[in-house]
Amino acid sequence: MSDTRPIGIFDSGVGGLTVFSEVEKALPGEEIVYFGDTARVPYGTKSKETITKFSVENVEFLMEHNVKLVLVACNTASSLSLDFLKRCFRVPIVGVIAPGARNAVDSTRNNRIGVVGTNATIISGAYEKAVKKISGRITVYSRSCPLFVPLVEEGWVDEKVTYEVASIYLKGLKSKGIDTLILGCTHYPLLKGVIKKFMGGKVVLVDSAREVAKEARFILDANGLLNKNPGRKRHKFFVSDEPGPFIRLGERFLKRKIKCVRTAV
Amino acid sequence: MSDTRPIGIFDSGVGGLTVFSEVEKALPGEEIVYFGDTARVPYGTKSKETITKFSVENVEFLMEHNVKLVLVACNTASSLSLDFLKRCFRVPIVGVIAPGARNAVDSTRNNRIGVVGTNATIISGAYEKAVKKISGRITVYSRSCPLFVPLVEEGWVDEKVTYEVASIYLKGLKSKGIDTLILGCTHYPLLKGVIKKFMGGKVVLVDSAREVAKEARFILDANGLLNKNPGRKRHKFFVSDEPGPFIRLGERFLKRKIKCVRTAV
Repeated sequence: MSDTRPIGIFDSGVGGLTVFSEVEKALPGEEIVYFGDTARVPYGTKSKETITKFSVENVEFLMEHNVKLVLVACNTASSLSLDFLKRCFRVPIVGVIAPGARNAVDSTRNNRIGVVGTNATIISGAYEKAVKKISGRITVYSRSCPLFVPLVEEGWVDEKVTYEVASIYLKGLKSKGIDTLILGCTHYPLLKGVIKKFMGGKVVLVDSAREVAKEARFILDANGLLNKNPGRKRHKFFVSDEPGPFIRLGERFLKRKIKCVRTAV
Repeated sequence: MSDTRPIGIFDSGVGGLTVFSEVEKALPGEEIVYFGDTARVPYGTKSKETITKFSVENVEFLMEHNVKLVLVACNTASSLSLDFLKRCFRVPIVGVIAPGARNAVDSTRNNRIGVVGTNATIISGAYEKAVKKISGRITVYSRSCPLFVPLVEEGWVDEKVTYEVASIYLKGLKSKGIDTLILGCTHYPLLKGVIKKFMGGKVVLVDSAREVAKEARFILDANGLLNKNPGRKRHKFFVSDEPGPFIRLGERFLKRKIKCVRTAV
């Protein structure tokens, strides 16, 4: 059996390309439809109701492209809206929180895990709950870092001022002696350099992208949904605003050219 | 003649409260309906088409409240969408660009004016065009400062790191010897302290809020639209997301309590 329908990925904007990239590596036989909600980005400062409304619309858009699986690449939408999305749609839907939490639990040796994310993600406590579900012995320390996304979007991933902002946000987590830090926002992997520099080389930085891709492969495999058609794969990228800024920033995320980005109306 | 209909003000979020505040002072006899598009904020990183679509919807919302005049408090929407809005609606509509430009032209002695704003405002060249329309002898130097809004929203208006960000953004303008700087975004007046510290006490910082309020008074007066009813005025605040964060940040802008903020759906 072979299912040639694409995998759908949505994010509030460009950050979900970190998930796209890992899915492409883990599942080279699959086509991907990516949707970035660039007209309404960011989600991390907004309420659960608003984020859920936007997320439902995003999944509806992907469904129009006949996707067989939806990946919610956005940490904020995964934290606040995943349960609702699962109740609304019959297609399998995977978020980034549980995979990231599993990854962190596997990594920690001293049972002290840190989480950084947007305001909405941190307030939701989603990572903490997901970690506790796996192991009650682990303590989770959280911190929202609202300036990290604009710093990445400004391209200041390695500046002195970014290091200083990171120090302000992370000093509390460092003082707790965490040995694992979940980068709970798709933009944050681009700040690995400064975060590592401040936290020290021994703290393991965990992001969800690779784990999500693995989970996507399991689900497709288990349900006989893998695409075994050997033809060339064409991914599609859609955004809700004009494509220019998405392409410029997206090429920094993917470290390659992005072609054929269209505005969905 | 007396016209008891309210004045409508819209902004992408909370920043337009600086305009609200000046209008309230200049026109104490008027009621105001304020709309902040907090579900889709910010506008400054988005395209002209998207900003214009949102702005049309915002004016339509204000029209449902029977406003007699619309003030576009958002610099980005004023830069990119004012002409279109004026063609779409019969109600008088005033933006913040022309008033800010007039204010700056009045202030400059050496004919060198700087402008800071969001990406979209700066790329539009709106302030530059507005200044040139008044005087061809003035040179305008511009710089977008994308991190200023998130810094204000984080509440870091007087931190060392904010001063460093300001230095990076403003050093080019300082080297041009400007004597007047237009704060082309409603959030920036909250950074006057650090901006003044970096630019030096002799550079005049200009914002549009007071000038817009003056223009609103002229228009109402000239058209016989002033509210001469002596009764108590009740302003109304609407946002497109939940009111909590708007109230918390808004009280910093207004330096007083805000009551009765409702979500418009």
